[in-house]
Amino acid sequence: MKARVHVMLKNGVLDPQGEAVRHALGAMGFEKVTGVRQGKVIDLELADGATEADVAEMCEKLLANTVIERYEIELV
Amino acid sequence: MKARVHVMLKNGVLDPQGEAVRHALGAMGFEKVTGVRQGKVIDLELADGATEADVAEMCEKLLANTVIERYEIELV
Repeated sequence: MKARVHVMLKNGVLDPQGEAVRHALGAMGFEKVTGVRQGKVIDLELADGATEADVAEMCEKLLANTVIERYEIELV
Repeated sequence: MKARVHVMLKNGVLDPQGEAVRHALGAMGFEKVTGVRQGKVIDLELADGATEADVAEMCEKLLANTVIERYEIELV
């Protein structure tokens, strides 16, 4: 089983990495880009019997800082 | 229009960040995790008229290092 986890900064939390990308794209002539948010994607390879609840626990305990980040789990 | 870009290390390229996450999860008792790959996700907010080809050009020129990374574009 595979799971894909997206960890993004919560809305309202400043994203300097995304801002830097937006500025760089603008400077390169990509003027149609109006906003950029950058986050992490973590692909997990799981043994049989692992559940989405296990993955949520991993996110809460290690993968995301839930004070400023939100996560989405997608089972593949 | 929105686009989501995933930038992952190519298969075969060592991923020390993913390995560190795998070790940490194992040490925390999540023994069902057999592999971890970590990458970036970049959410782009685009003005009307932008195309998938524009996003591919951004990936080639800035967002991904195509020597060691591959990218996937998803229009939302």
